Amino acid sequence: MHNATDGGVTAPKGFQAAGVHCGIKKAKKDLALIVSDTMATAAGVFTQNLVAAAPVVLDKEHLAVRPFARAVVVNSGNANACTGEQGLRDARAMAQKTARLLNVHSTDVLVSSTGVIGQHLPIDEILAGIDTAFSGLSCTGSNDAAEGIMTTDTFLKEVAFTCVVDGKKVTLGGIAKGSGMIAPNMATMLAFVTTDLAISPALLHAVLVDATRKSFNRITVDGDTSTNDMVLILANGAAGNRELGSVEDPGCREFSDALEALLVKLSKMIVLDGEGATKFIEIKVKGATTEEEAERAARSVANSNLVKTAINGEDANWGRILAAVGYSGITFNPDEVSINFGDVPVLQRHYGIDFSEECAKKVLQEKEIVITVDLHQGTAEAVFWTCDLSKEYVAINANYRT
Amino acid sequence: MHNATDGGVTAPKGFQAAGVHCGIKKAKKDLALIVSDTMATAAGVFTQNLVAAAPVVLDKEHLAVRPFARAVVVNSGNANACTGEQGLRDARAMAQKTARLLNVHSTDVLVSSTGVIGQHLPIDEILAGIDTAFSGLSCTGSNDAAEGIMTTDTFLKEVAFTCVVDGKKVTLGGIAKGSGMIAPNMATMLAFVTTDLAISPALLHAVLVDATRKSFNRITVDGDTSTNDMVLILANGAAGNRELGSVEDPGCREFSDALEALLVKLSKMIVLDGEGATKFIEIKVKGATTEEEAERAARSVANSNLVKTAINGEDANWGRILAAVGYSGITFNPDEVSINFGDVPVLQRHYGIDFSEECAKKVLQEKEIVITVDLHQGTAEAVFWTCDLSKEYVAINANYRT
Repeated sequence: MHNATDGGVTAPKGFQAAGVHCGIKKAKKDLALIVSDTMATAAGVFTQNLVAAAPVVLDKEHLAVRPFARAVVVNSGNANACTGEQGLRDARAMAQKTARLLNVHSTDVLVSSTGVIGQHLPIDEILAGIDTAFSGLSCTGSNDAAEGIMTTDTFLKEVAFTCVVDGKKVTLGGIAKGSGMIAPNMATMLAFVTTDLAISPALLHAVLVDATRKSFNRITVDGDTSTNDMVLILANGAAGNRELGSVEDPGCREFSDALEALLVKLSKMIVLDGEGATKFIEIKVKGATTEEEAERAARSVANSNLVKTAINGEDANWGRILAAVGYSGITFNPDEVSINFGDVPVLQRHYGIDFSEECAKKVLQEKEIVITVDLHQGTAEAVFWTCDLSKEYVAINANYRT
Repeated sequence: MHNATDGGVTAPKGFQAAGVHCGIKKAKKDLALIVSDTMATAAGVFTQNLVAAAPVVLDKEHLAVRPFARAVVVNSGNANACTGEQGLRDARAMAQKTARLLNVHSTDVLVSSTGVIGQHLPIDEILAGIDTAFSGLSCTGSNDAAEGIMTTDTFLKEVAFTCVVDGKKVTLGGIAKGSGMIAPNMATMLAFVTTDLAISPALLHAVLVDATRKSFNRITVDGDTSTNDMVLILANGAAGNRELGSVEDPGCREFSDALEALLVKLSKMIVLDGEGATKFIEIKVKGATTEEEAERAARSVANSNLVKTAINGEDANWGRILAAVGYSGITFNPDEVSINFGDVPVLQRHYGIDFSEECAKKVLQEKEIVITVDLHQGTAEAVFWTCDLSKEYVAINANYRT
C-alpha cells in the first residue's frame, strides 16, 4: 500500500533542495542542489553507454569509496560528456565546492549533468551558482530543483509517495528530466529520489536496480541511449524505522512497491513529454515463453519508427507491429499471434484480419493507447511505454544545439 | 573492369519485361513481369524477418525444388504478408498463371509482392494483369517493369553494367524499389537482377550473398526490417561464356565486382529516395579491430534518429555520433576516437574538441555527406549508407495506408 502525496524530493523528512540560474542557459534555471540534513545511504544506476560522461565516472567512484552521500548537485544545459580530463576535473570541482559548503568529504557529494555533449562546462559560473543554491536551500525547494534539471522538457516532473514500514510512515520523493534520447538501459534521463527510510546500502542498491528495470528501462522515445543517464537515491533514515537489511524484512515489499510505483510514474511522465509526442502508447506483449522474450518483442515494437508514425497518423497499421515482433529476434509462430488496439481485435489467430477500421480508428484517436500483442505460446508478459513520432520530434532535434 | 550501360533488366541478351496497371493501385502501374527466353540459373536472398510474406515462403520453396527459373512476377500496392493460407494460395496462383503462359512448371516462376501488409490480394485483377503483361513483354520493357514495382518511391531505380568474362561481353541489369522501412538484413526493398552470364547455381548464390552483404545490407533508412524483402537474380547464359563454376575461375572476379557495383548503385538510389530524405549520408567507421565491429558501429550511427535529425538540421552535433558508437555494443576506447565531417575534423583524439563550426556547417549543407569515425585501434573498416530524418518522413509514414 502506498499513497501519492506532494512535495517531490523535499517531501521526505530531513531533505532540502534549491534550483537557481547560474548562467549555462540564457535565462532558465540550470542548477539544482538536493541536500540531506544527515548522512544518507546512497545508490545509483548508470548509463550502459561506453561513452560515459564525467559525472557518471565520478559518481561510480564516489559510491565505490562508500555508499553514502549528503548531497546531489546537478547542472543542465551542458552534459559534461566527451570532455576528457578537463571534464573530470570540472565534475570534481562541483563535488568539492558542494562538500566544502556542507563540511563533508567531496566523495559524499554526487554530481550530475545533462545537456549538450562535447563542450566544456562554464565552471566558474557553476561554482558561483552552487553558492547561490546553497543559501537558497529550503524544505519546499523540490519544485525549483525539478526546474533546474530540465532541458527540452516541457513540464516539470515531480512525484511523492508514502508507505508504511515497521509501523512508521515512510515518504519517497522524486524528480526527473527527460523528453528525448530516451531508451532502454537509460537514456538522457536523470532521476533523483529521496526517502526518509532507514535501509542498508546493499539492499537499497538491489531494490533500486529492480525498480529501474521495470520502469526507466521499459520506456523509449527514440531508441537512443545517452552518455549521462542516472538514477540516484538517498535514504536518510529520518522516518525512524528499524533499518531494512534484507528483502525478507517486513516492510521491504511495501518500500520496493512504492519505489517501483514512483519510478513508473516518473517514467510515464517522461514518455508523455517525449519530444513532439501527441500520444502515450503502452505496448503489452503477453503469452510469451519468458519475460525476457516478452520484453524484447515489446521493445522492438516500441522502437519502430514505422509503428510510431502510423500511430501519429491514427492509422491502424497492425502489420507494422507484427513485422517489428518478427525482427525482434525472439522465436514465435506468426500464425498464432493476435493483436488488439484497446479492446478492438485487429488481428486474430491464424490471420483473422477482418476488423472494423472505424472502431480501431476510434481507439487511435485517444491520447492514451494500449496495444496488446498476444503470442499465445506461454504465460510471460512485459509492458513497454513509448510515444508517437511526430514532425515536431524532427523539428526539435534538427536544431538542438543552435 | 565494368562499365555502366542502359536498359535495366532487359539490357542482357535474352530477357524481356513488362509493367502494367492491373487495379491494385488506383492508376499507377502495379504489376511487373520479367522473363528469360530460356531457362536461367536462379538465386535469391530473402528477409530475415520471422514474419515472412507468402511470396518469400513460395520462392524459397521453388528455389529448393531446383535453382532455375524462367520468370519473375511482381505486384506492388499489396505485400501479401500476414495473410495466412489464403496468401500462400494467392502467391501460388500468380506463379501458376505465369507458368501456364510460358508453358513451364510453376516452380520455374518466382513471385514477389510489396505494399500494405495484412490485406488479401485482389487475385482476379492480378491474374488478368499477368495476361496483359505477358502480351506486352518487350526487350525494352525494363522501364515499365521498374515502374510496376514502385510504392512510395519517387523515382524509378534501374541500372545496367557490362563486364568481360572468358572473352565474352557479359551484361547485368537490375531494377529495385524501396524508400523506407529499409534496414540491414533486407527491408521493404526488392531488387531483381538479370544477366546473360553462364554460371552454376551454387556459385551464383554465393556471389549474390556476398554482394548483398556489401550493398543492401549496408543501407538503412529507418531501421525497420520488412516481411517481403528479396533480391532475385536470373542468369541465362546467353553471353556464351564457358559456365563459371568456382570463385577461382577466370572472370568470376570480374562478374562479382560488377554485381557488387550494380547492387551498391541500386542501394544508394534507395537511400537517396529515403522517405523524406534531403541528404545522402555515408558513415565510414575505420580503425576497428574487425570488419564486423566496424559494421556494427556504423550501423548504430546510421540508425540513430538523433544523428539523422541533427544532419537534417545541418547541426554539427558529433556528440550524438560518438554516443551512438558508445551504445553499439562494440568495445573501444572513447578517448582514442576521432570524427571527421567531410575533411573537417570535429573531434580529435583525446577529446580535442575545438573545431570551426563554420567549416563543419559548410560540409553539412551539401547534399552528400561523408562522416568518418576512426576508432584508432585496428585496421578494419566498413561503410554504411543512410539519409537524414525529416518532417516529411513522418508525414509520409503517418498515413501510408489511408
